[in-house]
Amino acid sequence: MTLLFCSSSDNADEWRRQISSRIPDLEMRVWPDVGDPADIEMAMVWKPPAGMLATLPNLRLIVSLGAGVEPLLEDPTLPDVPLVRMVSDGLAVDMAGYVAFQVLRWHRLMDEYGALQAEGRWEPMDHRSASDVTVGFLGLGEMAMAAIRTLRTMDYRLMGWSRSPKAIDGVECFSGADGLAAMLKHCRMLVCLLPLTAETRGIMDAALFAALPQGAVVVNAARGGHLVEEDLLAALDSGHLRGASLDVFATEPLPEGHPLWRHPQVRITPHVAAVTHPSRSAVQVAEAIEAHRAGRPLANLVDRRRGY
Amino acid sequence: MTLLFCSSSDNADEWRRQISSRIPDLEMRVWPDVGDPADIEMAMVWKPPAGMLATLPNLRLIVSLGAGVEPLLEDPTLPDVPLVRMVSDGLAVDMAGYVAFQVLRWHRLMDEYGALQAEGRWEPMDHRSASDVTVGFLGLGEMAMAAIRTLRTMDYRLMGWSRSPKAIDGVECFSGADGLAAMLKHCRMLVCLLPLTAETRGIMDAALFAALPQGAVVVNAARGGHLVEEDLLAALDSGHLRGASLDVFATEPLPEGHPLWRHPQVRITPHVAAVTHPSRSAVQVAEAIEAHRAGRPLANLVDRRRGY
Ligand SMILES: NC(=O)c1ccc[n+]([C@@H]2O[C@H](COP(=O)([O-])OP(=O)(O)OC[C@H]3O[C@@H](n4cnc5c(N)ncnc54)[C@H](OP(=O)(O)O)[C@@H]3O)[C@@H](O)[C@H]2O)c1
Ligand SMILES: NC(=O)c1ccc[n+]([C@@H]2O[C@H](COP(=O)([O-])OP(=O)(O)OC[C@H]3O[C@@H](n4cnc5c(N)ncnc54)[C@H](OP(=O)(O)O)[C@@H]3O)[C@@H](O)[C@H]2O)c1
Repeated sequence: MTLLFCSSSDNADEWRRQISSRIPDLEMRVWPDVGDPADIEMAMVWKPPAGMLATLPNLRLIVSLGAGVEPLLEDPTLPDVPLVRMVSDGLAVDMAGYVAFQVLRWHRLMDEYGALQAEGRWEPMDHRSASDVTVGFLGLGEMAMAAIRTLRTMDYRLMGWSRSPKAIDGVECFSGADGLAAMLKHCRMLVCLLPLTAETRGIMDAALFAALPQGAVVVNAARGGHLVEEDLLAALDSGHLRGASLDVFATEPLPEGHPLWRHPQVRITPHVAAVTHPSRSAVQVAEAIEAHRAGRPLANLVDRRRGY
Repeated sequence: MTLLFCSSSDNADEWRRQISSRIPDLEMRVWPDVGDPADIEMAMVWKPPAGMLATLPNLRLIVSLGAGVEPLLEDPTLPDVPLVRMVSDGLAVDMAGYVAFQVLRWHRLMDEYGALQAEGRWEPMDHRSASDVTVGFLGLGEMAMAAIRTLRTMDYRLMGWSRSPKAIDGVECFSGADGLAAMLKHCRMLVCLLPLTAETRGIMDAALFAALPQGAVVVNAARGGHLVEEDLLAALDSGHLRGASLDVFATEPLPEGHPLWRHPQVRITPHVAAVTHPSRSAVQVAEAIEAHRAGRPLANLVDRRRGY
């Protein structure tokens, strides 16, 4: 059985080590050294060149190295075979850490204390009770649920919005367009963890910001395409929003000289909220391969019609 | 029944509002307006002047406005009546947030990303799996347990050291001097949440730092007296320790020009990790007063012999 690996941002050797220790009889080739395309039965990819997967006549399974699959679904020639995405425990736990850090930084005035330290000033400030701070989630999938499990231990008031209605212990759940408006007005912090689809592209725009309370903070850890960056800058500059923590951008790397880099109320990380590491995720890939071989149902299968 | 309030750092009016809404027949006097000292049956205090409480002949109960009571126990004239300390839920949850923020800041390279943002540089870096990061706690009381509950959701490897041996789910527990050395060698992060007693004063010194692995980070959210500040500075400057997050200091406010203020690897907050707020803690004070009145057992009673 032969697997094709194709990613410019992941370490092929490390993946080979991890996977072959679990499935010794698997041959792994690394794009562009495909050999005979007819040999390839499975592909493990992140942002492969458009059209590439369509050149593999015997492809039976695609494994996405990322949790978000919109770069794959944008390719109209994508073969119609099962597509599995990465959602290892390590990934969700990393996301929980990113979100908790950003929520605490703004809620607990940590950057303000950093600025006071730089001036050598001792100035204790009051902060709200966590139970008075509503953190709302756009999306209630694997990533949001991991963040919710962490924030819950710190007594934040939690709300979330999803496509299908849900009931989650300790979370006020909303769905649909009306549900979104009903939730936004409470959210002192809004965390986007949606997949990028036709329906969610550009969702964080001027209208959404206007629906948030004065002084709200926005966290985007999903995709740059969810956020209308000019609208965010305007909402920060008007004073309506207090700040934004951004891990993802319309263009990545965020271009030199982009106004987000220097904005005093914006906190930037370079798409590191939850990164797939071979050592943590190989188990999941190996399970997908074994399940495929044995004809068992696949976990984390993407629904192409929904787009995630 | 009359209560004397004495604190220069807490808001007496706000406490009066909160307590009287719960116990309308309670008279609250604010030091130094004591009136007839014989009227006072209870005192609610933070760092009262030494000897003051001994002037109240009918004192039956002391409520400490802080979770740490060492400023009271240092007063040899402290009347021998029940002493209750503050450990409201809000306090523990605030501490969990402080500790989680500091652990994440160092583990997830957040300050490094802040520095890169200031230079407009996009440079994703690898971080360890949380499951490879051991966070050790000095002290396994109310405060440490709240932080542990939060860190556990993010898969950190957890260890803790206490006076009496303990068994805590998901935490490797140590006690005694041998136990301390056995724990320290694993701790990439060490969080101090001990009470300040004769046994724990100065515990974080050169010998303790040397027992930590190269590159460890120290977090002190207990009392300044636990840390030998010169030893910390030396361990940072030698490169043995990677950093320190400090909320408490030998002298508070931390004096102008103190070398900790400007040290590039030290993160300072002005004793705000977990602050008693009347709105969150009045319930607990009211419960102590009611229990005292009714002759019921008191929660959070301090054991004077142990010193905490
Ligand atoms: N920054 C990073 O490092 C990083 C890392 C990993 C993932 N991500 C991003 O995070 C996204 C979410 O990942 P996940 O694993 O949590 O995805 P997931 O498990 O598929 O969950 C997606 C959630 O979004 C909801 N949703 C989808 N379309 C919606 C719509 N039109 N309106 C309302 N709700 C909608 C879904 O609702 P239902 O529950 O009703 O289906 C679901 O709750 C990924 O797609 C990826 O873009 C970023
Ligand atoms: N920075 C802030 O804003 C802030 C806020 C609140 C509290 N604090 C500080 O945090 C401290 C801890 O609070 P807490 O409510 O968690 O206290 P606690 O519930 O009394 O717990 C104290 C813990 O320390 C352990 N301990 C005491 N002496 C020891 C010794 N000699 N060797 C080993 N372990 C020892 C105890 O062991 P056993 O379990 O065996 O008794 C216990 O686990 C307070 O005393 C205060 O100084 C700081």
